[in-house]
Formats: sequence, C-alpha cells, structure tokens
Amino acid sequence: MWAASPAFRRQLFLLRLLSHPIVPVPGGGGCSSSSSSSSSGYLRAHAMAASALAGPVYEADAEAVVRRITPPLDLARHKGQAGKIAVIGGCREYTGAPYFAAISALKIGADLSHVFCTRDAATVIKSYSPELIVHPILEESYSVSDGERETISSKILIEVAKWMERFDCIVVGPGLGRDSFLLDCVSNIIRHARKANIPTVVDGDGLFLITNNLSLVEHNSLAILTPNVYEYKRLVQKVLNCEVNEENASEQLIALCQNIGGITIMRKGKADLISDGKTITQVSTFGSPRRCGGQGDILSGSVAVFSSWAQHFLLSNEHPTEKSANPMMLGCIAGSLLLRKAASLAFEKNKRSTVTTDIIGFLGKSLEDVCPADH
Amino acid sequence: MWAASPAFRRQLFLLRLLSHPIVPVPGGGGCSSSSSSSSSGYLRAHAMAASALAGPVYEADAEAVVRRITPPLDLARHKGQAGKIAVIGGCREYTGAPYFAAISALKIGADLSHVFCTRDAATVIKSYSPELIVHPILEESYSVSDGERETISSKILIEVAKWMERFDCIVVGPGLGRDSFLLDCVSNIIRHARKANIPTVVDGDGLFLITNNLSLVEHNSLAILTPNVYEYKRLVQKVLNCEVNEENASEQLIALCQNIGGITIMRKGKADLISDGKTITQVSTFGSPRRCGGQGDILSGSVAVFSSWAQHFLLSNEHPTEKSANPMMLGCIAGSLLLRKAASLAFEKNKRSTVTTDIIGFLGKSLEDVCPADH
Repeated sequence: MWAASPAFRRQLFLLRLLSHPIVPVPGGGGCSSSSSSSSSGYLRAHAMAASALAGPVYEADAEAVVRRITPPLDLARHKGQAGKIAVIGGCREYTGAPYFAAISALKIGADLSHVFCTRDAATVIKSYSPELIVHPILEESYSVSDGERETISSKILIEVAKWMERFDCIVVGPGLGRDSFLLDCVSNIIRHARKANIPTVVDGDGLFLITNNLSLVEHNSLAILTPNVYEYKRLVQKVLNCEVNEENASEQLIALCQNIGGITIMRKGKADLISDGKTITQVSTFGSPRRCGGQGDILSGSVAVFSSWAQHFLLSNEHPTEKSANPMMLGCIAGSLLLRKAASLAFEKNKRSTVTTDIIGFLGKSLEDVCPADH
Repeated sequence: MWAASPAFRRQLFLLRLLSHPIVPVPGGGGCSSSSSSSSSGYLRAHAMAASALAGPVYEADAEAVVRRITPPLDLARHKGQAGKIAVIGGCREYTGAPYFAAISALKIGADLSHVFCTRDAATVIKSYSPELIVHPILEESYSVSDGERETISSKILIEVAKWMERFDCIVVGPGLGRDSFLLDCVSNIIRHARKANIPTVVDGDGLFLITNNLSLVEHNSLAILTPNVYEYKRLVQKVLNCEVNEENASEQLIALCQNIGGITIMRKGKADLISDGKTITQVSTFGSPRRCGGQGDILSGSVAVFSSWAQHFLLSNEHPTEKSANPMMLGCIAGSLLLRKAASLAFEKNKRSTVTTDIIGFLGKSLEDVCPADH
C-alpha cells in the first residue's frame, strides 16, 4: 500500500535526483570569475528562491527524505539499534557545544550518545544531563609534559578505539578548541574512524584541524563537513586557492568536494547548500533569524543521526535506485530541515530571547510533525 | 469490606498462581533443541501474545500485584519506613545510570535513596539532584597503588557495612564500569549484603561481575538479576553452556534459575519474563518503542523498592497462601509494570525524543493510576 502512495513516489523522485549525476562544471576549479552558470545540465532545475546564490539548484524534498530514512519504531528492537553516536569535543574552554551536539542526537531518536572530552570538561558536561555517557580521556598540552606526549597520545587512541566499532557515526569538532596536542590526538581518532568505516561529521574546530590537514578526510566518502561562512571561506582558500564566489556558489561547492575527493559538504547559510561533488541540492526551509551560538552543534548531532539512519536504510533496501543514493547527502538534508523547523518553532515562542536549549526543546515536535512516530 | 472486593480476590488468585510450582522442565538443562514445549503442566496457561517465545506462560496480573504490595500511606509512619534503597555504582565514566536508579526509587515512594560511587562520580551525581545521599567512597585502579589495594578495599567495605543494615534493598551495577579493583570491592559488598540478608538487585556491569563469579549470587533467594538481551546471552552461555533458545525461552529461563540456584531472574525484552526456578510469569503491558539508554536503571531502582515492599507485606501477612509467594518475583512484576506504564506515558507526550528523564517524570502518575495514594 505504502509503495503506491504519493509520498513514496515523491521520495523515490528525490532519491533519483540525488543519485543523478550533474553535468560537470566548466573549468572544474570552481574559481572562474565568469558569472554564466552551467545550467544546461539541470533539466528540471528551478532558481533558488530568495538566495544570493546565482547558480540554479534543486531544493531538496527534505520532508520526504526525513520520512524515508527515519526508522520505524518497533517493540522488538533493542537498545542501540536506533543509533549510537559519539561526539569528540569539549575542552577546558568549551563544554556547551559537545553537549548540544550529543543531546540533540538523543532528542532526535538515537539510543545512546557519548562524548569524548578532556577531564576538565567532563564533569561539567556530565552535570548538564545524566542522559549522556561522557568519557574524560582527552588531554590538552598544559597537562602533558613533552616526555609524556607519545605515551598519552597512544593511550587516548586505545581508549577511544575500544569504543569505536560500536558507533554508527561520530561528530568531530564541537568545542574541541585548538590546542596542538589535543588536535594531534584527534587526528589519530579521525584516522582510526576512517579505517573502521565509521561515518564522521566534522564541524567547528574539527574543520580548523582538517583544513590544515586535508589528508584526514580526502577520498573518505563517509566524511561530512558542515562549515559556516568563515570555515567555508578558509576551506575554499586552502583547497581552491581563491576567494568564495557567490555568483558561482554551487559550482564552487561542487569543485571543492571534487578537489578534496569523495566527501560531502554542507555549506551552511541562509540556504544550506549540500554536495558530494556529483550532485548538489539545497534546503532553504524557513528557520529563525536568531543566530545564537550552538545551532551548528545541534546540526552536527542531527546530521550524525540521520546519516547513520540513511546508511542503514539504504543498506537494507533492495531497490537499485535507492541503493545508489548517498546516505551522507540524505543525512545533511534531513539534519538541515530539522534544525530549521525546530529553530522556527523556538523563535515563534521565544523571539529575541531564543537560545540553543530552546531549539533543542523543539527537535522532538519538529520530527513528529514531519514523521509521526506511528507512521 | 476490602477483603471481599473483586480486586482483592484477583490479587489472591495471582499470589496463588505465583506460589504454585510448575511442572519440572523436561531435560532440565534448558538447552534442548526440541521446539516442543512442556505445556502440559500449565493447566491454565495461555500463549504469550505477540511474542517470539513459543512456550506458554502466564501473564502476571501486575496491577493487582502493585496494589497489593504498595504500603498504605499513614501519617503515623516515620522517615525510612517506606523504604531505604542504596545503589552501588557510578564511576569516572558513568554517572547517569546510578542517578536514574536512585532517583526512580524515590519517585516511586522510597523515603531515602543512597548512592555509593567513586569520588569522580560523586560530585556529578550530587549535582543532578539534592534528593540523593551520595557516598564518594569507591575507588578505581588508577587511583590506588598496588601496595594500598588491600587496605583501601577493607576500608571501603567497612564504610559500606556501616550503612548496610539500614537498607531494605541494594542495587548493584548501574554505571559500575568494569575496573578490576572496583569490581573486587563490589564483590565484597555483595557478599556482605548477603550475610546481612539484604535483598540485592544486580543489573548492568554488576551482571558482568556475577557472570564471571556466580558464587556471589548462587543460592541467594534474595538476589534478583535483571539482564537485557546481551547480558542474558552471556549468562546462558556461562551457566548452561549453550546459546539462547527462543523456542524454549521459558524452560531455558527456569533452567538458568535452577542452575544458579535460588535466585530470581527477570529477562528483559518485548515481554519481561520472570522466574525464580519454580514459577514463571511475564509482564507484556504495552510500554514504549523507544530504547534510549537508562530505562534499565529505572527498572532496577523500581524493582528494589517493590521487592522490599513485597517483603514487608508478606512478612506482615498471616495468610498462608500469600506467605508462600516470593517477594522477589512480586517486586519484578511490579517494577516491570511501572516502567512500562511510565514509558508509555512519556512516549505519548515526547514521541521519538523521549529520554530517560521524561520516563522518570511519569513514574508518579503511573503508580497513582494503578494504586491511588488514598487507596
């Protein structure tokens, strides 16, 4: 019955869009100063409404994606089967960001949410919520002597590696800080996750880390970067060796993905532009005009959950069209939509005083509105 | 008047059921691969609805049990008379689990709820709630030198022993972790509780501990194990030397109880299957399809309170049929029902975003619905 429904057909349409390669960008480098867009490849394209971007791009049917990849609730399932997420972040300075990412994962429907952070951060993050499992195992330079660095670095990796196989996705970066020793340790963790084929969402200071060491994510099809305007600018400068070009925004994003190779990037903005170097789409559902810090952390946690759900959905799906879709793209689309919807509801209620915790409080309702638990 | 009521008659019927020995399991070992169940002994049995288990088993009249064992509220009673519970758990990594177990005990109606945990965990657990009494006395290997081990181990036992006689029930395991020194100390605590005849609920990492050292609970009729699917699998492998057999689930559970001797086991699942090796029953009241971590901790705290209430109820009851019932079984039945009801209400409100704290928020209403405070 469901297979014949309009909703199902819309979802198939979207999945076909996602798996349909676009025509290569002329020049390929994404840094052409020409304003003429290569729109001939987008046979069904429409101009992106109310956007500063000049290139036409498909608006994702994000609600259909959410409905398609969100797993049905089933009494026969066990703890962990709806997702186990880990956030790598939290240091002496930052404790809110990893908490926001980790609790958002739970509020969307993951079963278990871990945080790997420094000792200083752990006590505080634990005290925010008894729902999280917080591992106080990272170290910053100030607490490690030069002679100890290697031993402690190995110990940290061993400790995280013990857990890694259990996770469906990790988020690297929220509240990570920029301490050199800590970032070295986190580089090892990213390499380990890659070897273990664990999808990895990189945000915040994690983007600072990978921008300076692109090999950490190059050709990793399970990596997602979620840069804001500043982080995106640094990435473009580093990878494409030019400035951000708003007139050819979509071509530049595609070129960025292609140059790094294999990864998915969600360029956050008024509209979130999402590409894996082969396809591009956007989510521009109305969100909130409030720009309080922490919304990016909600997004990274949400993208982690939805990407792992999309991966499970596609792996268990025999339909060839659906199988060819990129779960990382689907995760970004769904995460973007949910944050926007929750931010909109929180703003409607709290107006200028809206803070990140208010938005997290609306994640559940936003998901329920799009994809009722008994669907 | 109350003695003649239909509710009272239903409760008596249930208690009779519980005290009525079942026909011994053919083979006894619970590892037969035959799918034929020994249903001849269950003269009044009905098949377990909507379950993968093939063996017929009684559904407990769990509401009647809750009503029967929950003590009446009486202005003449003093602090402590409605129950004093202690949770042994909480280490550097885990703080949520012992909090969930301890606060659930209070929310159901216990008067005092203690937590014995490591120093690292204590500050955090205290910060979750001022309602709990938190003892920062356990130690993990990293904080103890080899030379100190024996002295510190004795000191910990002396410290816990000072309190032990005051408790109506202890819960061992939520957030205990797997540190070898800590587990050695907790083994001593379990032995001490047994000598002092204190009912002991074992869950989480406590099950890891006792699976590797069965003598800790063997032939202890005041011990309750509450394994989830993974913990149950390890127990079956260790004790029965075979795999879990879903077709003979009830026979296998009975065999497991008999082999360990004297204990009560609640096998958690879609339906919770409860046995003491002589009788078996189940609770399959609709709960919630959410499997967020922490629900097992609510259950262990609830079972602790209800088991101690059941024990007091049976000790003060002169009716021979009721006296022969096993209070540990009654505690499991009541705890299972209450968690399911609370989870159901929390899910109804919060849907996919339901977390353990939401469920704890509904324990009071769930109990009130079944057993009003002025009953």
